[in-house]
Amino acid sequence: MTSREPHEPGADLGLLSPVRAGSAAEAETGDTAFLQAMLDAEAALTRAQAALGLAPAEAAAAVTAAARADRFDVRDLALRARAGGNPVIPLVAAVTESVDAAAAPYVHRGATSQDILDTAAMLVARRTLAPVLDDLDRTAAALARLAVRHRATPMPGRTLTQHAVPTTFGLKAAGWRTLLLDARRRLEAVRASLPAQLGGAAGTLAAFGAFAQEQETGAAGDPGPRLLAAYAGQTGLAEPLLPWHTLRTPVADLASALAFTGGALGKVAADVLVLARTETGEVSEGDSGGSSAMPHKANPVRATLVAAAARQLPALASVLLGCLAAEDERAAGAWHAEWQTLREALRLVGGAAAHAADLAEGLQIHPHRMRENLDATGGMVTSERLAVSLGALIGRGEAKQALASAARRAAEEGTDLDEALLDEPALAGLLPKERLRDLTDPAAYLGSAVALVDRALADRAPRATDTPDTP
Amino acid sequence: MTSREPHEPGADLGLLSPVRAGSAAEAETGDTAFLQAMLDAEAALTRAQAALGLAPAEAAAAVTAAARADRFDVRDLALRARAGGNPVIPLVAAVTESVDAAAAPYVHRGATSQDILDTAAMLVARRTLAPVLDDLDRTAAALARLAVRHRATPMPGRTLTQHAVPTTFGLKAAGWRTLLLDARRRLEAVRASLPAQLGGAAGTLAAFGAFAQEQETGAAGDPGPRLLAAYAGQTGLAEPLLPWHTLRTPVADLASALAFTGGALGKVAADVLVLARTETGEVSEGDSGGSSAMPHKANPVRATLVAAAARQLPALASVLLGCLAAEDERAAGAWHAEWQTLREALRLVGGAAAHAADLAEGLQIHPHRMRENLDATGGMVTSERLAVSLGALIGRGEAKQALASAARRAAEEGTDLDEALLDEPALAGLLPKERLRDLTDPAAYLGSAVALVDRALADRAPRATDTPDTP
Amino acid sequence: MTSREPHEPGADLGLLSPVRAGSAAEAETGDTAFLQAMLDAEAALTRAQAALGLAPAEAAAAVTAAARADRFDVRDLALRARAGGNPVIPLVAAVTESVDAAAAPYVHRGATSQDILDTAAMLVARRTLAPVLDDLDRTAAALARLAVRHRATPMPGRTLTQHAVPTTFGLKAAGWRTLLLDARRRLEAVRASLPAQLGGAAGTLAAFGAFAQEQETGAAGDPGPRLLAAYAGQTGLAEPLLPWHTLRTPVADLASALAFTGGALGKVAADVLVLARTETGEVSEGDSGGSSAMPHKANPVRATLVAAAARQLPALASVLLGCLAAEDERAAGAWHAEWQTLREALRLVGGAAAHAADLAEGLQIHPHRMRENLDATGGMVTSERLAVSLGALIGRGEAKQALASAARRAAEEGTDLDEALLDEPALAGLLPKERLRDLTDPAAYLGSAVALVDRALADRAPRATDTPDTP
Amino acid sequence: MTSREPHEPGADLGLLSPVRAGSAAEAETGDTAFLQAMLDAEAALTRAQAALGLAPAEAAAAVTAAARADRFDVRDLALRARAGGNPVIPLVAAVTESVDAAAAPYVHRGATSQDILDTAAMLVARRTLAPVLDDLDRTAAALARLAVRHRATPMPGRTLTQHAVPTTFGLKAAGWRTLLLDARRRLEAVRASLPAQLGGAAGTLAAFGAFAQEQETGAAGDPGPRLLAAYAGQTGLAEPLLPWHTLRTPVADLASALAFTGGALGKVAADVLVLARTETGEVSEGDSGGSSAMPHKANPVRATLVAAAARQLPALASVLLGCLAAEDERAAGAWHAEWQTLREALRLVGGAAAHAADLAEGLQIHPHRMRENLDATGGMVTSERLAVSLGALIGRGEAKQALASAARRAAEEGTDLDEALLDEPALAGLLPKERLRDLTDPAAYLGSAVALVDRALADRAPRATDTPDTP
Repeated sequence: MTSREPHEPGADLGLLSPVRAGSAAEAETGDTAFLQAMLDAEAALTRAQAALGLAPAEAAAAVTAAARADRFDVRDLALRARAGGNPVIPLVAAVTESVDAAAAPYVHRGATSQDILDTAAMLVARRTLAPVLDDLDRTAAALARLAVRHRATPMPGRTLTQHAVPTTFGLKAAGWRTLLLDARRRLEAVRASLPAQLGGAAGTLAAFGAFAQEQETGAAGDPGPRLLAAYAGQTGLAEPLLPWHTLRTPVADLASALAFTGGALGKVAADVLVLARTETGEVSEGDSGGSSAMPHKANPVRATLVAAAARQLPALASVLLGCLAAEDERAAGAWHAEWQTLREALRLVGGAAAHAADLAEGLQIHPHRMRENLDATGGMVTSERLAVSLGALIGRGEAKQALASAARRAAEEGTDLDEALLDEPALAGLLPKERLRDLTDPAAYLGSAVALVDRALADRAPRATDTPDTP
Repeated sequence: MTSREPHEPGADLGLLSPVRAGSAAEAETGDTAFLQAMLDAEAALTRAQAALGLAPAEAAAAVTAAARADRFDVRDLALRARAGGNPVIPLVAAVTESVDAAAAPYVHRGATSQDILDTAAMLVARRTLAPVLDDLDRTAAALARLAVRHRATPMPGRTLTQHAVPTTFGLKAAGWRTLLLDARRRLEAVRASLPAQLGGAAGTLAAFGAFAQEQETGAAGDPGPRLLAAYAGQTGLAEPLLPWHTLRTPVADLASALAFTGGALGKVAADVLVLARTETGEVSEGDSGGSSAMPHKANPVRATLVAAAARQLPALASVLLGCLAAEDERAAGAWHAEWQTLREALRLVGGAAAHAADLAEGLQIHPHRMRENLDATGGMVTSERLAVSLGALIGRGEAKQALASAARRAAEEGTDLDEALLDEPALAGLLPKERLRDLTDPAAYLGSAVALVDRALADRAPRATDTPDTP
Repeated sequence: MTSREPHEPGADLGLLSPVRAGSAAEAETGDTAFLQAMLDAEAALTRAQAALGLAPAEAAAAVTAAARADRFDVRDLALRARAGGNPVIPLVAAVTESVDAAAAPYVHRGATSQDILDTAAMLVARRTLAPVLDDLDRTAAALARLAVRHRATPMPGRTLTQHAVPTTFGLKAAGWRTLLLDARRRLEAVRASLPAQLGGAAGTLAAFGAFAQEQETGAAGDPGPRLLAAYAGQTGLAEPLLPWHTLRTPVADLASALAFTGGALGKVAADVLVLARTETGEVSEGDSGGSSAMPHKANPVRATLVAAAARQLPALASVLLGCLAAEDERAAGAWHAEWQTLREALRLVGGAAAHAADLAEGLQIHPHRMRENLDATGGMVTSERLAVSLGALIGRGEAKQALASAARRAAEEGTDLDEALLDEPALAGLLPKERLRDLTDPAAYLGSAVALVDRALADRAPRATDTPDTP
Repeated sequence: MTSREPHEPGADLGLLSPVRAGSAAEAETGDTAFLQAMLDAEAALTRAQAALGLAPAEAAAAVTAAARADRFDVRDLALRARAGGNPVIPLVAAVTESVDAAAAPYVHRGATSQDILDTAAMLVARRTLAPVLDDLDRTAAALARLAVRHRATPMPGRTLTQHAVPTTFGLKAAGWRTLLLDARRRLEAVRASLPAQLGGAAGTLAAFGAFAQEQETGAAGDPGPRLLAAYAGQTGLAEPLLPWHTLRTPVADLASALAFTGGALGKVAADVLVLARTETGEVSEGDSGGSSAMPHKANPVRATLVAAAARQLPALASVLLGCLAAEDERAAGAWHAEWQTLREALRLVGGAAAHAADLAEGLQIHPHRMRENLDATGGMVTSERLAVSLGALIGRGEAKQALASAARRAAEEGTDLDEALLDEPALAGLLPKERLRDLTDPAAYLGSAVALVDRALADRAPRATDTPDTP
């Protein structure tokens, strides 16, 4: 037992979310990370104004220096956020207090809370997705190795829970990788396009112009669009076409890409969970969770946690996609519903990607169990192949009857299908025993599996040509 | 600026969730609260075994004494939960270490992680719902006062965003109250039925019997069902009919009742948001959020935060309802997806209920704006009433034409509808001016509004006959 | 190939929804059924007015006679519904045309479209749930028979996809039944409370009073509340406390109960799907779907279709629960989003319940495969039992080590656990071979399974005391 | 009243979905359209095999000739789909019967049901999205015209339901257009990438190879990948990298793009709904829905129906995104849950896009009401502007106080803000009356609104370089 300074009683420290506890994504999406990102946004705004001559360089330096999360009390800000409904209001007050009187008027000057909070959310998303992309790369690389190694390792192909025809584990692993690369491309494209937010009170950038007029700066004309560019540059985010206070493309795109990634990881988990079942035993996690009272248990813990994340993400995405329908120049509720939902989606995906990478790297493949399972139905797994050959010999309809009759007898007598077929009157003398054995050999009926593995592995995800996200 | 011991970087301390920051529901659903509930479950289990002679009374006392959340490090437990996929595994190890050697074997004896985590979740739900029910009562009481006071205060009834016919604010407030009482009844019924969980490794209670056999206690026969009752008694929760590891009625019921409550609160918020719009101005929040640069702004902050919560709850409920379809004796993912989701649903509802109570108690009603809005269409809001009278005089079809024609002229000429009707040839001499004025008086066309208010207020929610939830 | 009159090109005739094609629920929720229910509502309204002296008895008879769906063209009504956004507007015109001139003024008199559409939806729900409850009864009865027959049939209890300890198939079937009875109770309670809707233009019942005034009927005072009661009586639905145009308790309650039922059926399906897997083979559907090319395939088609329905219902419920937050006296969108969503939820549940009943009645149980699976791990499935006994002999820690060591050797050497334990030095001479065999007998470690079956079966769902729903 | 041949009782003919009744999307997604698409897939498959020498050209011609939806009974197929759980099974039987004996063996040869159904779904999506893209273009063009015309038409910018600072209607319309172009790009990109599906029984294309072997065609080697290309070519869809029976990228991408589009349309609808409210009256639908009893009502029917669609789409998308986590080579439920869900999403988006185009083309803008609303707060809407100027004169803090004090007096005395400011002691003599009037002129405080309109309009969606989708 360890004892320590008690935590805030209402704090969420990951106890109920082992999928992300201790992950990079968790750290990048914590309240402290959001606070730092808001401070980064405030500092970028003052620097951008300084760059355009709308604020003194000293003010920009002062705000930048003050913009350190460890100088503020995140819980206190959270409590003070209730009055106005968002944390930027108390944060601006706190930052203003923390700089000298000369810099104070330039803090948050001309901006609205949403400019800061949206920019912060984009910074957090950008930072969180970096390790997520790395984990997806790690997973894809491990799966590529498995696909190569087991390119031709036969296993039962299963449809609607039943053996259908053979496939190979390599094709399964290659499919997983393809799906994860699809996810990776979507995430990376969204990440590269995440924009800064700046619009002022109602998205017209009006206050910036008002301040410029009062300052009688040399800078002629409307500073709005230039400030948009300068601010985006300072944040390292993309420049938006318009302020997007209620044009929520970036959040909706994040939602879709995160839900897609959760689903792609969930597909891998779903397969691991069925293949790891005690009766099937074709794969196992390298470091499965044990049970003290039941030493035989090797729980697929990582797959379980990934599957649990995959169950939550579509619903979180539905909330975010629903927030597209936001009224006015700032929505009363649709905006506020995004914050916690987006954070949770980011950390679930981040945690799931990390577990999936470990899962893929440690996954144990058991080809002998695959073979046992293929053989367990006595050749039935190749009945499709037999139907083709028999059909060519005696016609489609008769072949079907003979096959069904032999299958019935094989099941009743506990023999293999090839032996039962030898006794089928309709086939008498048509197919030698050896040919029948070949036709019922699962390893000889892999179709294009190996070619498809090679085809899939030739698809390489484009590497990110990524710019650093902090100045 | 306040400075303090840095928080865990990934911690969620409410910064992104002003709807629940600082609320009772937040405290009751934090990691510390879940930890305490798990410890309460472990202690109850040992006490229940002691009560049946399956453990020494000293062990029960020792575990009960050790079961204090402040003696454990919740973050450390969260991190150690990753290996096995749930926090009970490291907790059992920590509790076992924290008691003396004689008591150690009786910690968690015979149980499975899910017994403890599910029981803890039910305890947390039960504890969180107590202040939620209080806040709903507070809201309902405030709404009842408003309904009485404004029983006959006329305001425009609006359908599809347009004025329809008059209603009263009292009827609106009474409707809100009725919906909240519906929510209250559902929450309270669920709360009263929340069961303890006990099933052992696969829901057969087998280990308890095995220990009993080895102990050769005097207690004859299978201790399972008796232990179920004793354990439920010790937790203060209901005794389940069966272990419910994958029979998730209690969680699904919570999900439905929480989503219902969120929606009921969301209805109130939706109405406040439209009625508080600058152009409408019929209500305002008592302590609206201000803006330093825009002193006229009186944002309906509480309604906004409640509306944001209402947007999230149906999706969270959909995750929990989806987890009903859980395979086997413990699901690989469907169980794990519940934890964080249920917590978030509880704290969103709790926070929203608290804000709604403050909102209802402070709501400012502006009858003069209601009257101005009723009058703004020059009598059109009573055109339904006119149509009835005119129809009786000149027939349904002609009345409709006359009304449409008068309405057109009134709009063009900027006059009131009653005056335009005086000039309608079809009505010449049929309706005296005074009668027309009466027929276009919104306050005279309230239908059964007042009667409905009284009818609704006569419905009183049954008071909770509630038992305390701790021994 | 059959040829016939071409269907409306955009029609949905069930091609993509085999779960409900041809079911009673499909017929009860089709457009024709909704049309009939709207007509029933119109007729009930005129009859109710006649009963209060607000309309001639002849008008009530005329509208009732006209209210036959086969006299109207549902597609034409659908197309004409676009202009006003709901199908009642063209329907009222069509009904008015279809009665004689004396009755025409009494068609829809005083009502609003939502009165009719909401009442129709409740009638449809009430009618659809009747066969659903029957199918749940049929399923529960079949499961009760299975639970009795297999009360003590041992099978592996599985957690996180792995064998844990033994359970019985009877306990599994009893658990399914318990969950379905939970669903049944919720559905039945909701069904019994479904209210008629009547409020007039904005929920004040004002027009009814206006007509009464003009008629100078003997009936004194406000007819609103009396009409509410009379109308409810004529529809066979419950009388609402208030008009509920934007107080959507009935729809939200339906949503929750339907999603619950879908989840409960989905639990049964999820278990059937894992137990029917080729490698597990413990159950099979009585009339499984075959494949012409693969005669060995016995797809669990019914479980698949039920599982597919269960995946859709939580999302549909989330839409309906989200519609609780409806603004004004009639919502612009929140109401309209309910119609198709509720219909789809009703027919998915109805179809799934029918398939589940057939599934339960035809389910084949394979006790020998259960036994084979129990034996496949060489006694490991009872390691929890062994740990208890060994712990009593040599202490908890040493027992755990001995068990782990023996388990490792058993796996390596391909022997059973009891034999490996005989060779464990720490256990030398402590446990005779026979006792070890007993301790590793799965059938001897069923815990309270049998007792729990009996306990569960003693829970009988209260029979519906149901009133007929048509006058 | 019209009378006609009664429809199938359970049919959905659009009665509950006025948003799509009669739309192109409805026709393209009806059961007949799906049936035709399945037939197109079967015909394409035989033609592709003929092209590779795996089938006689005559068989390809025969199947192509038979592949006409009007030759099959869709309801009968729907009913027969129940046994095997999908409509392809009975369809293959029906097509086989409908061709001559020589062609019969080549019907569906080597394929699996999912090959046909997935390909059909992609064809349906492709065909449905064509009119959707057209409607989005039409909407965007209408919005561009509005944006140009009202580039500088001042109206209140609103945040959290309250007036904030002025904006222009042109900027609002330009923002809507930008969001719709975002939707259009996403839909078009997905549409261009929709792949054909071909994998055979378990995704290995094995049967095609088997048939090729038996035929001893000249074609050497594995025909699988070549057939994939030929088949895709015949369908007009993209060639997939792998069979995607359980790699559901195309469906997930459709889900995201459809939900995005629904949300984008929903944003327009949400704004129209608040701007059209009786008290606000800044816009109205050109052909609003009327009410016979209430001639003043001009319901925003189109916006209402679009808003209703937007409420449903995120939930439908969540089902489809959830289906990514599909186990095995064909999922038992996750696949089946997609069909109806995808269809409903397509037709909701299609219907909403059509209504939105009509809405945008007919939208009435009322600049005088915008001006009245701007003026209704007596200059308060420019208080941000005043705060900047006053701050420059007397310091930030004092300016804030003076503004608040003047605002309070203006509200109490019913005067305008500029007059109240003239009396503020702190400002005595500092700002001449004329300057104050300028500073409180909403039309003079539009910020960068006009520049942003031009910037947004310069963004033109890339025109589709679209290939026809039928051979």
